[in-house]
Amino acid sequence: MPVARVVVDVMLKPEILDPQGQAVSRALVRLGFDGISDVRQGKRFELEVEGPVDDDALGRIHKIAESFLANTVIEDFTVRVENGDAS
Amino acid sequence: MPVARVVVDVMLKPEILDPQGQAVSRALVRLGFDGISDVRQGKRFELEVEGPVDDDALGRIHKIAESFLANTVIEDFTVRVENGDAS
Repeated sequence: MPVARVVVDVMLKPEILDPQGQAVSRALVRLGFDGISDVRQGKRFELEVEGPVDDDALGRIHKIAESFLANTVIEDFTVRVENGDAS
Repeated sequence: MPVARVVVDVMLKPEILDPQGQAVSRALVRLGFDGISDVRQGKRFELEVEGPVDDDALGRIHKIAESFLANTVIEDFTVRVENGDAS
């Protein structure tokens, strides 16, 4: 059965403080890496979808992301189909 | 000063067991969402870069990702410049 990959990225909303990202950002300065003004850390989910990734499947994944992968009070999410380029 | 966004995605290597992803995958079945055969969970870092994102800047970010954001024994990472489309 063909399997496609859909990626759901979950990031804290811009107005929400991100202590993890701030910790990374400050550590970069301490380690001597400059030129990075801000870091935000979020989650990336890779979902292997059975069958065709049509509007119906994307709708279901949107629902999964909204109800389960992201806390939409404080987080934004994006759903996208990953192309075949192995990274 | 212009600020560009570079995204670093960090995922467990395919051969490494991902208990977080498995937990999500099993929960989806319990919650009645079918058609998802596998889930892997990783991290997404958004870095705001001061100045131009040239080869030099990307090289530095590659080094940051390799030495600091990812544990390259068990994780793979990708570095990419995010286009201006607000998501």
